[in-house]
Amino acid sequence: MTDRFTPRPGEVQLDAPLSMQAEITFIGHIESDWSLEDCPKNIAQAREAGKPAHLHIAPLFRAGLEGISQGDALVLLYWMDRAPRDLIRQMPRHRDSATGTFNLRSPARPNPIGMGVVRVLALDMAAGRITIDAIDAIDGTPLVDIKPHMPRADHLPA
Amino acid sequence: MTDRFTPRPGEVQLDAPLSMQAEITFIGHIESDWSLEDCPKNIAQAREAGKPAHLHIAPLFRAGLEGISQGDALVLLYWMDRAPRDLIRQMPRHRDSATGTFNLRSPARPNPIGMGVVRVLALDMAAGRITIDAIDAIDGTPLVDIKPHMPRADHLPA
Repeated sequence: MTDRFTPRPGEVQLDAPLSMQAEITFIGHIESDWSLEDCPKNIAQAREAGKPAHLHIAPLFRAGLEGISQGDALVLLYWMDRAPRDLIRQMPRHRDSATGTFNLRSPARPNPIGMGVVRVLALDMAAGRITIDAIDAIDGTPLVDIKPHMPRADHLPA
Repeated sequence: MTDRFTPRPGEVQLDAPLSMQAEITFIGHIESDWSLEDCPKNIAQAREAGKPAHLHIAPLFRAGLEGISQGDALVLLYWMDRAPRDLIRQMPRHRDSATGTFNLRSPARPNPIGMGVVRVLALDMAAGRITIDAIDAIDGTPLVDIKPHMPRADHLPA
């Protein structure tokens, strides 16, 4: 979308094309109630909206779900490629001043990988379908990875 | 490394080649004290080892660090490509039985993206160098993303 993108005051785009060095295979996609217009800005907002979503895992990868259970906490990585990848300094609407892309959770980043911690509400292993409590991703967003959430690793010691 | 890889009993490799659908640009790399032989198995172990590490951000991407400060908590995504990507059921040494790849934090996964929550100990913005408290990645691991860690998003409600 970079061609159609107009930076806001204070925003900076990279002055060089990105060179690509590794490849991603999508393991499935997210089915959600959200479009670009109404998608929650972060997963805390998504949880407040109270709309469950579904992960659909491609047949090739379904064996990888073994051991996941109802009630588990998962870390999801997903590919949010509707934003420019070359915006290195940004002015989100909720801020008074621009700041670096790596100081923001914006989907506009060199590698547009979103991360969300979610709860498993239901599973249908044969269909490769996992129902989760909430997600801040639009319907059809490609899924990159599923990991078990581990508080001992994923929370910082006080 | 898939060609040289020998599965353990109970492990399953995909029976089809992975098709790639998106591209990653590395934003820099991790400098750590770890090799494949002695790397901690997870970031909780890495924190116990008490060895700081450094992030080196490529010049093109350094403007994206603006706003990051000493003491900040960051989520890092990094590319752990020394493991097979087609292992869909695995038998880690710490387990009694094999389980699905998406039920494990193993680097062997379709998209070998590791995730670690770290603390910023020091920054040299001009040099693109961030010193962090710990990391479970070998020296030279490519860096994919840096995000601010946000407990309201990244911890699950009880």
